[in-house]
Amino acid sequence: MTPDPILGDGTPVLAFDVGGTDIKAGLFDERGALRDVVRAPTPYSTDGSGDAVLAQLAVLADGFAARHPAITPRAAGLIVPGLVDDESGVGVYAENLGWRNVPFRDAASAVLGLPVAFTHDVRAAGTAEYRLGAAGNYRNVLVVVIGTGIASAIFLDGRPYSASGFAGEIGHSVVDVGGVPCACGGTGCLEAIASAGAITRLYNRAAPVPVAGAREVLDLARAGDAVAASVWNTATDALGLALSQAVALLAPEAIVLGGGLAQAGDALFAPVEKRMTSFLTFHRKPVLLPATVGENAGLVGAALGARDRLAGGPA
Amino acid sequence: MTPDPILGDGTPVLAFDVGGTDIKAGLFDERGALRDVVRAPTPYSTDGSGDAVLAQLAVLADGFAARHPAITPRAAGLIVPGLVDDESGVGVYAENLGWRNVPFRDAASAVLGLPVAFTHDVRAAGTAEYRLGAAGNYRNVLVVVIGTGIASAIFLDGRPYSASGFAGEIGHSVVDVGGVPCACGGTGCLEAIASAGAITRLYNRAAPVPVAGAREVLDLARAGDAVAASVWNTATDALGLALSQAVALLAPEAIVLGGGLAQAGDALFAPVEKRMTSFLTFHRKPVLLPATVGENAGLVGAALGARDRLAGGPA
Repeated sequence: MTPDPILGDGTPVLAFDVGGTDIKAGLFDERGALRDVVRAPTPYSTDGSGDAVLAQLAVLADGFAARHPAITPRAAGLIVPGLVDDESGVGVYAENLGWRNVPFRDAASAVLGLPVAFTHDVRAAGTAEYRLGAAGNYRNVLVVVIGTGIASAIFLDGRPYSASGFAGEIGHSVVDVGGVPCACGGTGCLEAIASAGAITRLYNRAAPVPVAGAREVLDLARAGDAVAASVWNTATDALGLALSQAVALLAPEAIVLGGGLAQAGDALFAPVEKRMTSFLTFHRKPVLLPATVGENAGLVGAALGARDRLAGGPA
Repeated sequence: MTPDPILGDGTPVLAFDVGGTDIKAGLFDERGALRDVVRAPTPYSTDGSGDAVLAQLAVLADGFAARHPAITPRAAGLIVPGLVDDESGVGVYAENLGWRNVPFRDAASAVLGLPVAFTHDVRAAGTAEYRLGAAGNYRNVLVVVIGTGIASAIFLDGRPYSASGFAGEIGHSVVDVGGVPCACGGTGCLEAIASAGAITRLYNRAAPVPVAGAREVLDLARAGDAVAASVWNTATDALGLALSQAVALLAPEAIVLGGGLAQAGDALFAPVEKRMTSFLTFHRKPVLLPATVGENAGLVGAALGARDRLAGGPA
């Protein structure tokens, strides 16, 4: 397991990563080390508000205070999925959590009694990779997180680019016109073909014996299963195409691949890079890098945001 | 014909737009009006240098000085095609003009005895649209110029994004895997399907009687020619797809279409918008706008750059 990176000396901060099933909470100390991590179930909102989530954050913060009386956090970072407007601090929409237009930044600040930095979970993980991880030497970077879905964080000229929360949706860029249906309502989206979820689903639709995940599809492909190989190759081809399109438009110096599927290592990176490169001519070819920050990248990015907030930097 | 926009009060400046066949030169006065425009053939470089072009710029500047003794330009804007690194001021490569790694900004400054702002021709035209034209009310904008080729200028969070000259190459984003060959050496690039040049070429390849340009292909399509309709529809479908992919990644609030093909008006905009929208679900849908600055957009953008340079702004 990748060890968590150290933020460096600074103020102790709290970090909250609100996911579809769990809220993961972390306490970072004055060295910037992640001293404690706890999880609690994410309450579903029945009224469109974020009140239940906010109440849970307060409970988690109290728990840290009780267990670590010597560490006094001065700010908190909060990250959530869905559509997130960083500038206004609003969680615009999260289908699987039931909220709409929740002013999370200000509400969490009131509940916790701390300044709060608020952003999207994938952008926070991307920030961790960009500032502490694989892509630290580059100013134009795309961080693509491939798990149940596919999303990305974009850094251009050294700054995150979010377009009020709408940017980075490479998972919902159409790479196969008229292709398989996507959860978003479209068809042929990259996510519907190349996410870990899609790889599992597409294999199970075609194979007699279902599998539990993309890792098993890869194992079967390596063992000579033709259906598994076809699903895997279709996925890596689609990723290579979508990345080449991002290269034509944005010319990132580096593309970082993270999330569960990136654990496949060379079985993912080699065919994706080959396919991407096959579409490039005079373009600037980016380096393709595995994410290095590890499973707590979201929390680390949230903590970086919290420290920035205190320093008067980006919220 | 669209009248040239007025830059507004400020310093008189020169502007040079070096194209594949002509250098177009303009003199902007203290009101920011384009007072004089002349053309001279672009000398091809046989030695990889830009010396012949630079000498021609001096001749053109002398001509303005002789004809307009009361107008004293204090800076110049120079724009060229190909691969251009705005930050270093270098014309990296222009296949059809024969130069490589020419330090145009500094060399032109020495030849003209003026501070020089240097950039890519499409980015300059995009800047004119962004600051004086169709997209003035938006901070995240894609300006796509569709003529012989297809290129774009990108403005994000209110700033131009160029990635050392490599960004914006939407014309060389693959939209048809294994499709028709492109001049860049690839296959299935947007430019090979949807540029005015490609539309003409693809029609002539399939039709018994050749035409001279994309406008005639459109006229034939309207008159019921099935081949022309097919070529036109394939082009607008490809543009709609490529724009939807840019929307997924960057979520621009506005997309401006300019260049010769945009003169087709609704015959281009309506099918492109319909196709683009068919690929969008939760995405932020951009407004699709025709370019408004007109045929001298490049010169106008170069002049804006020259004034910025004097003001200590972006070069």
